[in-house]
Amino acid sequence: MRTDQQPIRISLFAPNGRMGKAIATAAEQDPSFLISQDHGDVIIDFSAPAALAASLDRAVTAGVPILVGTTGFDDLADKRIADAAKEIAVLRAPNTSLGVALLSDLVERAARVLGTDWDIEIVEAHHRHKADAPSGTALALGEAARRGRQSGDFERARDGTGLKRQEGAIGFAAVRGGTVAGDHDVLFLGSDERLVLSHRAENRAIFARGALAAARFLHGKPAGLYTMRDVIEAA
Amino acid sequence: MRTDQQPIRISLFAPNGRMGKAIATAAEQDPSFLISQDHGDVIIDFSAPAALAASLDRAVTAGVPILVGTTGFDDLADKRIADAAKEIAVLRAPNTSLGVALLSDLVERAARVLGTDWDIEIVEAHHRHKADAPSGTALALGEAARRGRQSGDFERARDGTGLKRQEGAIGFAAVRGGTVAGDHDVLFLGSDERLVLSHRAENRAIFARGALAAARFLHGKPAGLYTMRDVIEAA
Amino acid sequence: MRTDQQPIRISLFAPNGRMGKAIATAAEQDPSFLISQDHGDVIIDFSAPAALAASLDRAVTAGVPILVGTTGFDDLADKRIADAAKEIAVLRAPNTSLGVALLSDLVERAARVLGTDWDIEIVEAHHRHKADAPSGTALALGEAARRGRQSGDFERARDGTGLKRQEGAIGFAAVRGGTVAGDHDVLFLGSDERLVLSHRAENRAIFARGALAAARFLHGKPAGLYTMRDVIEAA
Amino acid sequence: MRTDQQPIRISLFAPNGRMGKAIATAAEQDPSFLISQDHGDVIIDFSAPAALAASLDRAVTAGVPILVGTTGFDDLADKRIADAAKEIAVLRAPNTSLGVALLSDLVERAARVLGTDWDIEIVEAHHRHKADAPSGTALALGEAARRGRQSGDFERARDGTGLKRQEGAIGFAAVRGGTVAGDHDVLFLGSDERLVLSHRAENRAIFARGALAAARFLHGKPAGLYTMRDVIEAA
Repeated sequence: MRTDQQPIRISLFAPNGRMGKAIATAAEQDPSFLISQDHGDVIIDFSAPAALAASLDRAVTAGVPILVGTTGFDDLADKRIADAAKEIAVLRAPNTSLGVALLSDLVERAARVLGTDWDIEIVEAHHRHKADAPSGTALALGEAARRGRQSGDFERARDGTGLKRQEGAIGFAAVRGGTVAGDHDVLFLGSDERLVLSHRAENRAIFARGALAAARFLHGKPAGLYTMRDVIEAA
Repeated sequence: MRTDQQPIRISLFAPNGRMGKAIATAAEQDPSFLISQDHGDVIIDFSAPAALAASLDRAVTAGVPILVGTTGFDDLADKRIADAAKEIAVLRAPNTSLGVALLSDLVERAARVLGTDWDIEIVEAHHRHKADAPSGTALALGEAARRGRQSGDFERARDGTGLKRQEGAIGFAAVRGGTVAGDHDVLFLGSDERLVLSHRAENRAIFARGALAAARFLHGKPAGLYTMRDVIEAA
Repeated sequence: MRTDQQPIRISLFAPNGRMGKAIATAAEQDPSFLISQDHGDVIIDFSAPAALAASLDRAVTAGVPILVGTTGFDDLADKRIADAAKEIAVLRAPNTSLGVALLSDLVERAARVLGTDWDIEIVEAHHRHKADAPSGTALALGEAARRGRQSGDFERARDGTGLKRQEGAIGFAAVRGGTVAGDHDVLFLGSDERLVLSHRAENRAIFARGALAAARFLHGKPAGLYTMRDVIEAA
Repeated sequence: MRTDQQPIRISLFAPNGRMGKAIATAAEQDPSFLISQDHGDVIIDFSAPAALAASLDRAVTAGVPILVGTTGFDDLADKRIADAAKEIAVLRAPNTSLGVALLSDLVERAARVLGTDWDIEIVEAHHRHKADAPSGTALALGEAARRGRQSGDFERARDGTGLKRQEGAIGFAAVRGGTVAGDHDVLFLGSDERLVLSHRAENRAIFARGALAAARFLHGKPAGLYTMRDVIEAA
């Protein structure tokens, strides 16, 4: 696609990181993108929280949109992102998979329709080396459920006795082992029936491809704060 | 709920059928409903295609809404339903579970967003005595997917060789055994990732409860043709 | 079956408990069993840990086998059971489902074959009112895995950061909500592949039927300590 | 491992095929193997049915064991394999994944214990380009179930009405789409409970690694006909 057009020039803020390399590989396979050593048309930052000020600065100075795929930010970072979004298009994504973006949208909708009569539980599985639990994506799905329902305390890591589930809570469970790239199941458990919305990543290439889809979306967009859900809605 | 109000009077068109009895049992447990021997506020018909003319006639004559839960209709029946819906509220539901109604809505939305790059497959499981395959609910979910995508031939019962999946097709597979009340999985299979939207009925009480929710929705509604998705959207 | 034989007389130690009633109902539907007010051919005890001494005493005095379905015992109870098993047949079962008994056997076998290269995780789901986590059955499945591998610390309730999975550990996760009768999944997560062994209880009738199968097994058995796995192996 | 020993020399009968290349890649990563241009210690044949006579001939002449991973053989091929196995060790494997080999063993065991009261269904999913259904592995799992039960007609591709499941049948269903490397679920559907034994291949590297494990097993083995289940039992 886009063979009649100029390719979108991608500037990788951290080209030697795991995701930087994966995005470069994905871009090589798609003629509608070009990895640029210069500022490019869109900047992609999958570096680390400490580098955020520098990457936003580069994007604002160049006047080009930026995809921020880094996670683990504090309140100051939130403010920096909001400030930058007044001048350029900023897309913030804890997970750049299009499937997860759609899942989040469906979870919010289901939670709104079903209300608190249906209990919500989020189960995620990742490879044996993952050090945090629940996954950032599981927590983001929990936030989507909470937005839909407009309530819901998070219950994490049930263990022991006298644990009866709090009414309206959103529960989390983490599975770790093998080479699992990322499974997320959102369960809506009702009276005698259940609805389960699931995503399976077969490998991590999907995150690079999703980052490129986000870059295509951002190219030429006006200032503002965007998410992957804007990307799938524009698709 | 509704303790300050008159109960909704339900008239069962086929009170001695399996679903008629189940609805009567569910209504006994809910003070906001009353099974009426008379015309009632809402008529519920889970009889057989041949009885449709009679049940619609009773509803139109009495000027009360009707829930038609029967399946297996022909074109003439479609016309009868459309005609009745000009005079009274008619809700037609091949499956009265609220969870399945929501699933259908989510499937249509996901199919619209994902397009034909993601293959759609529908797998359903039912008890060993079920005689038709795919289930009516699976076919209805396939229609929802097709509405979302605006295309999609149905591929049923793959068996043999030289079967390569047709681009854009919607596939079906049926599992039969034991006492399974009803599992439906809609799979969206993409490149290196998949999204799966599933419903599990633990037993058949949910269909009776869903019929009562439909009756509550229909009570006092103007003429028109409705579906379970209107019920969940009003919830 | 057994129509040419005398029915097995079952003496319920706690006939008015939830399981006592369920077993009586299941026995009524099977002509090969009879609920006896007297000592019967087999005693079934689903009461409470405090009543164990009394139920074992009754069985030893009468010289009839006993099924102990109660859970939550201490070391003294273990000793009492071992002592009784020198004189009569005692079957101890934290879960009387035949499917779970077979699952436990398969888990032990798989764990022995796969060794510690494959990570083991046990995920269970139960209804919203269950107060303990992980379930007793999940812990028993973990013991079966540990017997197969001859090693494995239990990792429960992962939450937070810096959690990297311990090599050789057996992990547990608990899901709570709705009316789930009991799901147990044992995951063996290897390099690029996984094996999952699962059991689903659709409702609790299976525990009563399994208790009767255990009683049939126990009838006429010599002194000794048995488990549900002896029941399935004799089947 | 085996660092104190000579590496096992693997002779690839079809080194340029998809599996030949994958095995060469896997062998490069494991110092206990060496790809040999000569006859080697073990011959691996993933070519095509037509080449079987030539590969067996080479192995018998050289007096070295052979792994035959090709599928789609006729009766004459069966006889050729049986004849060769009188002189050398021959391992025949429609699927070289260790996880699938173990699954097959567990399925046979479960089918033997559960008998025909539990209905057996096999559901498999593969990528959109797979042209045959059910998969060869699904059929092999069906054979394992039939061995366990000592009966069972195969029911494939249910579609239509008047389909009531035959008592004791083993059913098959095929899902096709996306990039699924290979899912196999064997369901045992009983009264109010079910047991599900599943394997998931995350990618196809597992088949190459399994072929090397088979080669290690075959090295130095006496004449005879072996399967992947012998490999896992020796593990």
